[in-house]
Amino acid sequence: MEANGTSFLDKVLNIVKEDRSESVPLIQFKHPKDLEAILNLDVKEGVNDKELEVCVREVLKYSVKTHKATFKNQLFCATDPYGLAGAWLAEACNTSQYTFEVGPVFTLIELKLLNHILKVFGIPNGDGIFSPGGSVSMMYGLVAARYKAFPEIKTKGMRNLPEIVIFTSQDSHYSIKKAAHWLGFGTDSIRIMPTNDHGQMLVEKLDEAIQIEKDLGRCPLFVNATAGTTVLGAVDDLETIADVCKRHGVWMHVDGCWGGSLMLSPKYKSKLRGIERANSIAWNPHKMMGAPLQCSVFMVRDKGLLHEANCAAAQYLFAQDKFYDVSYDTGDKSVQCGRKIDSFKLWMMWKARGDLGLSELADRTMATAQFCIEAVASRPGFKLVSNVLQCPNVCFWYIPTFMRGKAEDEQWWEIMHKITPKIKELLILKSQLMVAYSPLLHHKNFFRLAFTFHPEVDNQEVLQMLQSIEQSGETVTMDMLT
Amino acid sequence: MEANGTSFLDKVLNIVKEDRSESVPLIQFKHPKDLEAILNLDVKEGVNDKELEVCVREVLKYSVKTHKATFKNQLFCATDPYGLAGAWLAEACNTSQYTFEVGPVFTLIELKLLNHILKVFGIPNGDGIFSPGGSVSMMYGLVAARYKAFPEIKTKGMRNLPEIVIFTSQDSHYSIKKAAHWLGFGTDSIRIMPTNDHGQMLVEKLDEAIQIEKDLGRCPLFVNATAGTTVLGAVDDLETIADVCKRHGVWMHVDGCWGGSLMLSPKYKSKLRGIERANSIAWNPHKMMGAPLQCSVFMVRDKGLLHEANCAAAQYLFAQDKFYDVSYDTGDKSVQCGRKIDSFKLWMMWKARGDLGLSELADRTMATAQFCIEAVASRPGFKLVSNVLQCPNVCFWYIPTFMRGKAEDEQWWEIMHKITPKIKELLILKSQLMVAYSPLLHHKNFFRLAFTFHPEVDNQEVLQMLQSIEQSGETVTMDMLT
Repeated sequence: MEANGTSFLDKVLNIVKEDRSESVPLIQFKHPKDLEAILNLDVKEGVNDKELEVCVREVLKYSVKTHKATFKNQLFCATDPYGLAGAWLAEACNTSQYTFEVGPVFTLIELKLLNHILKVFGIPNGDGIFSPGGSVSMMYGLVAARYKAFPEIKTKGMRNLPEIVIFTSQDSHYSIKKAAHWLGFGTDSIRIMPTNDHGQMLVEKLDEAIQIEKDLGRCPLFVNATAGTTVLGAVDDLETIADVCKRHGVWMHVDGCWGGSLMLSPKYKSKLRGIERANSIAWNPHKMMGAPLQCSVFMVRDKGLLHEANCAAAQYLFAQDKFYDVSYDTGDKSVQCGRKIDSFKLWMMWKARGDLGLSELADRTMATAQFCIEAVASRPGFKLVSNVLQCPNVCFWYIPTFMRGKAEDEQWWEIMHKITPKIKELLILKSQLMVAYSPLLHHKNFFRLAFTFHPEVDNQEVLQMLQSIEQSGETVTMDMLT
Repeated sequence: MEANGTSFLDKVLNIVKEDRSESVPLIQFKHPKDLEAILNLDVKEGVNDKELEVCVREVLKYSVKTHKATFKNQLFCATDPYGLAGAWLAEACNTSQYTFEVGPVFTLIELKLLNHILKVFGIPNGDGIFSPGGSVSMMYGLVAARYKAFPEIKTKGMRNLPEIVIFTSQDSHYSIKKAAHWLGFGTDSIRIMPTNDHGQMLVEKLDEAIQIEKDLGRCPLFVNATAGTTVLGAVDDLETIADVCKRHGVWMHVDGCWGGSLMLSPKYKSKLRGIERANSIAWNPHKMMGAPLQCSVFMVRDKGLLHEANCAAAQYLFAQDKFYDVSYDTGDKSVQCGRKIDSFKLWMMWKARGDLGLSELADRTMATAQFCIEAVASRPGFKLVSNVLQCPNVCFWYIPTFMRGKAEDEQWWEIMHKITPKIKELLILKSQLMVAYSPLLHHKNFFRLAFTFHPEVDNQEVLQMLQSIEQSGETVTMDMLT
């Protein structure tokens, strides 16, 4: 390898291009032990470039092609090509997002982009930070709320605080549980609010629950409203939640990791009305919008709070006697020290498309999801979980012919609960479609098709997915379900 | 852009290659406001591919070339080219490290590589995880120790725990402060142990301090030993700390984010003797070893603990009714949900070089640092902060001729405190060298040259760096220091 270390990068580009050709299947599934036996993953002995290339090709061969339209397994999909280009450039520049001196342009890009994003979300005077994912963004929200209410937490810890309670909905993301553990609240401090049939928090229950906690002498600190739940894509009634939070003096956080991308669309942003009243917001452009993982933005209304809560003023890094304006050394507002340049790939995507281009992609995504809902509703054997389109999630069961026209009793649903995963398995083994399934509350396992900013996914593609599900579904027999 | 989205990637490769040509300067420094005025960072209006390419070239023009030997500003430097290739491939595959189904090969690679790393660090039966940086790895350590001692923390939080204290050295990394805040201990729970002249924790003081806290009825939970402090590169006496921790029943964590890479060298690993007795270890291959940011490994001796402490068993993601062996769905041991594939780039580096190749790079790095210490010691005007080589950090002052032969009183040191940053400024403005400086305890600002696995840095390069510092140092006058 030559000194500047780029010779293997030519190979990488070729490998990636070949990997993206249409004929490459979505997945070539092997069970873990079988895959282990095929691959030569041991690193003890070094290999030469030629052998390494062979290994790399094997790695890619058995990796999932998440850029394909038929990858519908998660809430991410279809890396934006400009985002990927940005990610590659940021990797090549290999620096950290903490001081201006080591990332002058990336510092400015993060600031500029965050300001634009804050405007899009209706809190133009706020502050923000790129974090390594939605779960960390959730922690940023809880930390900010806690510090605002009890600044002594930073030095004194949780032991001397009153009994804090936090509120979330039954359909919200599980990261709030992990955050409650890590940050020292404990999961018992979480009050889980019921949801309606479409997955939205029952806000009157929230109002009551906060009052009950107050009456019991506890301290209601934080309401986690969700704009786009993981499974159903439900958007809580943010406007009314904002009223409740305001009345009770409770911090309002919006987990918009999934649904936040709808703010890019003048047509659909009204679904998130009230988000501009939140104290903090989390948004993952690496989900619906297609930025390469990881790309998560945490926003906070209170401008100085992130820095005040998180700073530690390490002298070796954030020296105040530098020769440039050190207010551009923004890293001390982060809980991380070294921080990956996650802003640049999003900047590339935005720069390439502009506000207008992104809004068109959002609108197109929602239109595709709407078409899918209608197609599912009208198609024999398909049964919607909810017929309301909030975020571009479409949830449904496929009922094979042999199950139709029977009483939908408990036993029937137990069989359906096994049929859904079985169909998924068949689809994977045929490399036709990777689709998510989940149970939810009283619902047995159902499918979730979640649409993202994918320029290739059109109505025809949707019909193809439904047809694949149908075809595999029809090959399921009772024998397979043991 | 064509459908499979790779057309801009050709441009990226060319841009990166040009950016890596020798004639490109280390840095073209502009002050923040000036840089803002030059760059067209606004994203509101989209641009076409040609314009985007122009923007991207500007971004790179003003970005720091951290791959150059003269980038000595941080503890990272010189991205390993195989690491970069791995990072690009992982970005192109764009998936998440949580379930086998969406990252079959990457799941196996993470497991395989972690097992190899655990062996290297002497805890072959342990467990590990890749985390987004050393600060998060520090939190993993505290969370594991706390959960092990008080499993009720997960549900009940910190309020019902005894008063916990944690121990670290004066020279340790500031991430423990941020972690103490976030996790709800509070920074007052940290006891800061004094260090000797070479930056190592005074272990007898630790022993005393733990006993004092016990006598006061508090709960000593966690000792953070450092293998490679940020500034001096000090390695605490891990063997004796392990004895103290064992005697008192306290969790021993080793922050080996910087120094852990010496474990790759049979010759130098003895410097970290005792690390194999730790309960948990953090190591950042993105520092000395040159993996692209972010690449941090958290290791824990107790095999099931990571999962037990962190799991939340989200049904939609970690369903137990999948058709493959779900013990390979390893994501629930993480505090993150979506998690970037950070293992693959390290795997590529290791696969390309093997254990032997990496140990040679480590040995070479240490030899270069040893040469630098000797060169600094013998060169007129240079003054070492410590003459003991622990990690490859070399810390020193440059005393310009006009400052020599005078009484080194307080006033003299105040001037030296300003001279160091001024020399750094001059070096940056001439694009000759980016070198770290810091004060430390009673020491006024001094330089730190920290060496990394950089195949291009040889003794000649070291002499060139010292000469650059000398030359710029000799142009400093008292007038410049106001």
